[in-house]
Amino acid sequence: MKSRPVGPGPLLVLLVLLLLRAASVRGVQRPRRYTPDWQSLDSRPLPDWFDKAKFGVFVHWGVFSVPAWGSEWFWWHWKGEGLPQYEQFMSDNYPPGFSYADFGPQFTARFFHPEAWTDLFQASGAKYVVLTTKHHEGFTNWPSPVSWNWNSKDVGPHRDLVGELGKALRKRNIRYGLYHSLLEWFHPLYLLDKKNGFKTQYFVRAKTMPELYDLVNRYQPDLIWSDGEWECPDTYWNSTEFLSWLYNDSPVKEQVVVNDRWGQNSSCHHGGYYNCQDKFKPESLPDHKWEMCTSIDKLSWGFRRNMVMGDIASECEIISELVQTVSLGGNYLLNIGATKDGLIVPIFQERLFAVGKWLSVNGEAIYSSKPWRIQLEKNTTSVWYTSRESAVYAIFLHWPENGVLNLASPVTTSTTQITMLGIQKDLKWSTDPEEGLLIYLPQLPLFTLPIEFGWTIKMTGVH
Amino acid sequence: MKSRPVGPGPLLVLLVLLLLRAASVRGVQRPRRYTPDWQSLDSRPLPDWFDKAKFGVFVHWGVFSVPAWGSEWFWWHWKGEGLPQYEQFMSDNYPPGFSYADFGPQFTARFFHPEAWTDLFQASGAKYVVLTTKHHEGFTNWPSPVSWNWNSKDVGPHRDLVGELGKALRKRNIRYGLYHSLLEWFHPLYLLDKKNGFKTQYFVRAKTMPELYDLVNRYQPDLIWSDGEWECPDTYWNSTEFLSWLYNDSPVKEQVVVNDRWGQNSSCHHGGYYNCQDKFKPESLPDHKWEMCTSIDKLSWGFRRNMVMGDIASECEIISELVQTVSLGGNYLLNIGATKDGLIVPIFQERLFAVGKWLSVNGEAIYSSKPWRIQLEKNTTSVWYTSRESAVYAIFLHWPENGVLNLASPVTTSTTQITMLGIQKDLKWSTDPEEGLLIYLPQLPLFTLPIEFGWTIKMTGVH
Amino acid sequence: MKSRPVGPGPLLVLLVLLLLRAASVRGVQRPRRYTPDWQSLDSRPLPDWFDKAKFGVFVHWGVFSVPAWGSEWFWWHWKGEGLPQYEQFMSDNYPPGFSYADFGPQFTARFFHPEAWTDLFQASGAKYVVLTTKHHEGFTNWPSPVSWNWNSKDVGPHRDLVGELGKALRKRNIRYGLYHSLLEWFHPLYLLDKKNGFKTQYFVRAKTMPELYDLVNRYQPDLIWSDGEWECPDTYWNSTEFLSWLYNDSPVKEQVVVNDRWGQNSSCHHGGYYNCQDKFKPESLPDHKWEMCTSIDKLSWGFRRNMVMGDIASECEIISELVQTVSLGGNYLLNIGATKDGLIVPIFQERLFAVGKWLSVNGEAIYSSKPWRIQLEKNTTSVWYTSRESAVYAIFLHWPENGVLNLASPVTTSTTQITMLGIQKDLKWSTDPEEGLLIYLPQLPLFTLPIEFGWTIKMTGVH
Amino acid sequence: MKSRPVGPGPLLVLLVLLLLRAASVRGVQRPRRYTPDWQSLDSRPLPDWFDKAKFGVFVHWGVFSVPAWGSEWFWWHWKGEGLPQYEQFMSDNYPPGFSYADFGPQFTARFFHPEAWTDLFQASGAKYVVLTTKHHEGFTNWPSPVSWNWNSKDVGPHRDLVGELGKALRKRNIRYGLYHSLLEWFHPLYLLDKKNGFKTQYFVRAKTMPELYDLVNRYQPDLIWSDGEWECPDTYWNSTEFLSWLYNDSPVKEQVVVNDRWGQNSSCHHGGYYNCQDKFKPESLPDHKWEMCTSIDKLSWGFRRNMVMGDIASECEIISELVQTVSLGGNYLLNIGATKDGLIVPIFQERLFAVGKWLSVNGEAIYSSKPWRIQLEKNTTSVWYTSRESAVYAIFLHWPENGVLNLASPVTTSTTQITMLGIQKDLKWSTDPEEGLLIYLPQLPLFTLPIEFGWTIKMTGVH
Repeated sequence: MKSRPVGPGPLLVLLVLLLLRAASVRGVQRPRRYTPDWQSLDSRPLPDWFDKAKFGVFVHWGVFSVPAWGSEWFWWHWKGEGLPQYEQFMSDNYPPGFSYADFGPQFTARFFHPEAWTDLFQASGAKYVVLTTKHHEGFTNWPSPVSWNWNSKDVGPHRDLVGELGKALRKRNIRYGLYHSLLEWFHPLYLLDKKNGFKTQYFVRAKTMPELYDLVNRYQPDLIWSDGEWECPDTYWNSTEFLSWLYNDSPVKEQVVVNDRWGQNSSCHHGGYYNCQDKFKPESLPDHKWEMCTSIDKLSWGFRRNMVMGDIASECEIISELVQTVSLGGNYLLNIGATKDGLIVPIFQERLFAVGKWLSVNGEAIYSSKPWRIQLEKNTTSVWYTSRESAVYAIFLHWPENGVLNLASPVTTSTTQITMLGIQKDLKWSTDPEEGLLIYLPQLPLFTLPIEFGWTIKMTGVH
Repeated sequence: MKSRPVGPGPLLVLLVLLLLRAASVRGVQRPRRYTPDWQSLDSRPLPDWFDKAKFGVFVHWGVFSVPAWGSEWFWWHWKGEGLPQYEQFMSDNYPPGFSYADFGPQFTARFFHPEAWTDLFQASGAKYVVLTTKHHEGFTNWPSPVSWNWNSKDVGPHRDLVGELGKALRKRNIRYGLYHSLLEWFHPLYLLDKKNGFKTQYFVRAKTMPELYDLVNRYQPDLIWSDGEWECPDTYWNSTEFLSWLYNDSPVKEQVVVNDRWGQNSSCHHGGYYNCQDKFKPESLPDHKWEMCTSIDKLSWGFRRNMVMGDIASECEIISELVQTVSLGGNYLLNIGATKDGLIVPIFQERLFAVGKWLSVNGEAIYSSKPWRIQLEKNTTSVWYTSRESAVYAIFLHWPENGVLNLASPVTTSTTQITMLGIQKDLKWSTDPEEGLLIYLPQLPLFTLPIEFGWTIKMTGVH
Repeated sequence: MKSRPVGPGPLLVLLVLLLLRAASVRGVQRPRRYTPDWQSLDSRPLPDWFDKAKFGVFVHWGVFSVPAWGSEWFWWHWKGEGLPQYEQFMSDNYPPGFSYADFGPQFTARFFHPEAWTDLFQASGAKYVVLTTKHHEGFTNWPSPVSWNWNSKDVGPHRDLVGELGKALRKRNIRYGLYHSLLEWFHPLYLLDKKNGFKTQYFVRAKTMPELYDLVNRYQPDLIWSDGEWECPDTYWNSTEFLSWLYNDSPVKEQVVVNDRWGQNSSCHHGGYYNCQDKFKPESLPDHKWEMCTSIDKLSWGFRRNMVMGDIASECEIISELVQTVSLGGNYLLNIGATKDGLIVPIFQERLFAVGKWLSVNGEAIYSSKPWRIQLEKNTTSVWYTSRESAVYAIFLHWPENGVLNLASPVTTSTTQITMLGIQKDLKWSTDPEEGLLIYLPQLPLFTLPIEFGWTIKMTGVH
Repeated sequence: MKSRPVGPGPLLVLLVLLLLRAASVRGVQRPRRYTPDWQSLDSRPLPDWFDKAKFGVFVHWGVFSVPAWGSEWFWWHWKGEGLPQYEQFMSDNYPPGFSYADFGPQFTARFFHPEAWTDLFQASGAKYVVLTTKHHEGFTNWPSPVSWNWNSKDVGPHRDLVGELGKALRKRNIRYGLYHSLLEWFHPLYLLDKKNGFKTQYFVRAKTMPELYDLVNRYQPDLIWSDGEWECPDTYWNSTEFLSWLYNDSPVKEQVVVNDRWGQNSSCHHGGYYNCQDKFKPESLPDHKWEMCTSIDKLSWGFRRNMVMGDIASECEIISELVQTVSLGGNYLLNIGATKDGLIVPIFQERLFAVGKWLSVNGEAIYSSKPWRIQLEKNTTSVWYTSRESAVYAIFLHWPENGVLNLASPVTTSTTQITMLGIQKDLKWSTDPEEGLLIYLPQLPLFTLPIEFGWTIKMTGVH
């Protein structure tokens, strides 16, 4: 470590040395080391598992789950912006002087059963799960040594939520991602740095970096989902130092994947895969691996007690978005908020089960797929393409009125074979000089179709 | 009042006199008065609106919504039966000595907006709503003068829940039913009467009857949904006196409807319409108006935080049950539990919206319908019949594989016309000596059908 | 009411019959029975123990101990009168809508050890203790069957406070008095009766009388300290019926003592001993046994968190008042408020210990004493007289500057002997035609006097 | 650590620079600077005010005031030592899993009126007041930027308790001392350092030192009462660096006084005045200024709800200890615990008023006094000497039986004059070859003496 010129500060050095000695010896003869700059870091190949996974579940959970009103930005809207409806909510429901920290003891997680969560995630077809270890509120869902009395072990649940979920996921071979917010809205040292124009790094050294290293060393995550980077450059956050350690020396250097939120201007430009903005949807095939994150509750990532059906994405909307995302080379990370007592409410269960049911039929066109040479075709209905090995998949969301699916892009050959996923026998097809490939969909009664929307045509021997 | 030999006791007399003077003068020249015996009371014709309504929503809400665990029988399972899992739940989550009454202040109803509830009920197609005014726990959701400090005005919500919901429902012309439990598991006077083999009536005179009269006079309900009758004969409860007053002199004597739970052996035998047991489903057409009550959460009537999808009735199950019930002459009362803060969670919203959407197409076959001469036919699919004026409706739940619906019972005539609700044009049909009426279902693509299950064939000119 | 010759209504009759059968058989052949009118009731001789006891401790304890602010009239000041400072106190400290009943669960009594209380009462020299079983708030400190969910067994302590204290007192042979408020400010039935000009008695029959009978039968008190009578005549309260039962048939008919608050105009005129007003001090010797009740905290009977030294009676004030009261034939009932967690705070302990220490020296002049022919003499210092058998006691509060106590009233004889309580040897004395009896006080150094104020001269052989 | 020449680490440097620039320019031309070693630091003269003050009030207040049971070491006894009675207390009174941090929101300070506190302190005669700004529990009673969500602004009171009390004290010219614990039992960084044998200083740099500097800069205390030093050497704590800054450059460099708890072995050897152990009482006159700290509640420094009179120092004990301490050259710091709602209970008020009353008569012998050549004489009674300018004071606690006070040590002269404080006229005296000076005490009646114990003889013209 001697040669590191800038480094994470003595506290971090020690933490690393102490806790990770074993880990660092593991990394025998690495032929190449990444340097703490974007050119080097961006050159690292993305570990394979991530692109294959395609579908993940995102969970927002924290002290914001206690008011469970507005959104996970509750504290900011209330105290940062002073929005009148938040002031009103507090004065209507709490005694004068009640503070955000006072919500802490009510975050009980008393019904949190990690096995029950993972049952659900597995049934949803998710290959990875990302949990908020710490949102902008700064409360850590694990016993962080630098977040004393503002973490889930000291206050509220009195449990290591991050650790417990990790153990349960590992048993099911579901990959584990850790969401981590770089900034904390109201941390006094962050406010001090901000006042100093981010020329000081008290907060980074005392809180953010120690916690990131601690998370990696304790929980050996497969993915780090960074957030809260937007107010400061990566040089303030010491992101590149962290990433070079993560890639070179951390216990997860082989498999770990990160996103792109590591400093102002890094999003969509640097890091591992790209999230760009929340709920980002590209128009055409990006040239860099990306992930679309979105939330079943359209108005909030954290659980809201008062959500109504109009705010909740339907099964069709979710499936459509998943298909579009995968076709365009992305991963789809679908968010739910957990309640303060550690439950996932039925409406979220229902949506996740619906995705799982759809994937149980159509997963072949999704998992481990690659974008095809064409992504989208719009004829009578929208058709999204994916491919996998020699097969091409065309996923259409609306059933054509005449029962004939018309595809312009695939070029048939003598060996062309066409089926629908979930149905045994081959489909009839023909070609037409003007209309291209015509596929005669099965004339099955409605209820014998395995699914109710989003059908997949599988073609082999086409190009 | 002089001639009343047995009567509700001086307390009741006064309450009635004081509060309802206006009401009683209204009841001008009644040609006939009911006497307080079943022969007379059972002879009263059921007010018309009830049979026409067909579909209602039932709401369980009370202090049991605070633990929101197990079921609305929480208190009984815990303290009456001492079930170990309830003991454990309490010792895991509350300090030693915490009592059921201590839950009271946490029943906040802080997000209870009666208008939002009624929006939902209206959208569900419900023509009446039944609210628990007081469950077996004895907590009254209105300011009962004989339930001091154990009612929703003194403790918890500090609101008149029964009154507020009533006002909102009246604006939408939704009928209002009041659920009322005769017994209270742990009321000391009830326990005293029980110890006396129900030869004393301290409880009835001090609590049950004053409250029933108070409910009627304050809220002028359209329906009284009595419960908790099973331990004692109607003579203990003074039910027949109450009902004769209700039918003769109460402010709701014209329109009020009651069910059949008024004493041991009265259920399924006496009263207004019959509920018989909870979730009762007759095999064939009963000769007395009845109502099937059931709950979306199959394991509880009260809201449970920890319900999972497997416990929740699907849209198909609900629609099927509604159709079957109406075909057999019943009303369908579908229950949801509200949360301690006065919300109806999205999964319940979703189910109610689904019913509403179905009824918006098929309501013609449901509301104001009468049973037809045949109720059920089983061929390739189950078909339930209803009728209304000259029309006969056949509701089938599964789409026949060959697109042809085969009906054995209707006899066609020269004027026979056949349509499907929600679709404009007439359907083609033919008759076959062996198979009866063959109806050629529309060959519409799946997504252009107005609904996805439970389609209604309307026939005129058949018998 | 007129025709009802016997009594307390069917509910009461039953309660009495059921619970007290054993008790009533005990009362063998009574030669005389009291009739339910004041003439008869007032003729009952006061049981002997009360006049001998002289000093008692009064304890105010209830839900008002939770806010512990203002006084035990908190609820009335807040909701009955709407005093701004009470409104402010609530809005400053509690969420909107918080009700008085919501205080209930916080009345924990968690540190209530009745043995520790009785240790203290015994050390204070008290011969009886009076506990608020129910104040005007209506909350009962025992499991009253007609105060469901508003009593100390269902809510808060989850204990029978009245019963527990009684058991501990009995072990020390301290007499047990039960304070009971006839009225309850906000009981709906009381408000109904009030609205009816107290021509109805719903409240009396449903609540007050059942509870009074229940208290007597359960706890067999030595004293009933009635209060809250002022708004209604005794005919409303049914007081005389109750008292005739108490004197004729109750399990405590022999020893029970009652005070005088049984209806408008009864105070200072009817009942047992007289309290007249709170803190009543007669100018001269009354001709009826009386009791002065007062509170160490001069501003409240219930415990107040925010009391300051200026509000608290000093040891001298308390001793002076005790002496004056006993000299004038009264009993002295000194009040403390207990905390919501069942503690008696040190300042009250200190005052009670001080009284006990004083009585350990001077008790001979107090307990079982009788007024002397003169009560008060004012010379250089105030001197209060008592007597007991052949002895006359002169208690002086200020030490005369010249060391000579001058008494005008006692007439010495040849057998006159004069001592000071707590000091072994006889005192010198002389008589003077003008000044009367001159007693030469001991010239002891200050710290060798057994007490620091309120010294007692004992004289025998005087008249 | 050795090579670090400058000091408190970058975080501290910045804090200091930022916050205190103004302050440091103030310190014009200092002729001499202290170096961060004990030899230099111990050479600083103690600011004059402290020795003159003689009497101070100590206040323990923090989250430990919430359980208010056992002592302010509650957390340690419970979680550090696992004492069964603490485990029992928690399981009896709180839900499973309740943590110490969960007490935080209940520390309301809702009745904390700093003006009322200072009224009391002024009436007690205290010249300085020391408040716990942070006890070993680590909760800061001010908004420390390095104790986020574990301080009185974020949690509980939502107020700056240290600041508010300081303002009120300054108005009365009462000196302000800040108690500060170096260690925090359960701070994760402290535990990490401890695990490392205190060879790392993560905790010192991240928490202790930033907070000490912050306290000085924000509140400009007159006194720093350091504690919690015992587990580590001063080199771990960086105490000498802090003290050299405090003495050289801090805004309070002129007047600030510190005690002696700055590292293992520093107590009684280094620093400002000496506390040595808690409740330390030297046998003879120490050669270094010292202070005796003690608590009115003999069993606890923090407020305990369940204290009883036997645990509470009497007025005589307190006065005796004050006299003895001052005679031996010490200051007397008398402790009280405040309640979680910010009150000082009456028993503590009473004791403080008693001291104030005593000092109002005898203060001349206490404030600004110096030890005399003799401290204690034991004849018929104990006599403690003090002196001030040319006067010698002899304070005796017990009144001699014969009314003659016998003093062996003072040597009378021709100008000798002898009086008793609080009494106008001179006392008669004589000398005796064997018995020394005989002073004839006034023969006043008891109640005309201005005080009841602890009288002061003032002598001039003696040596």
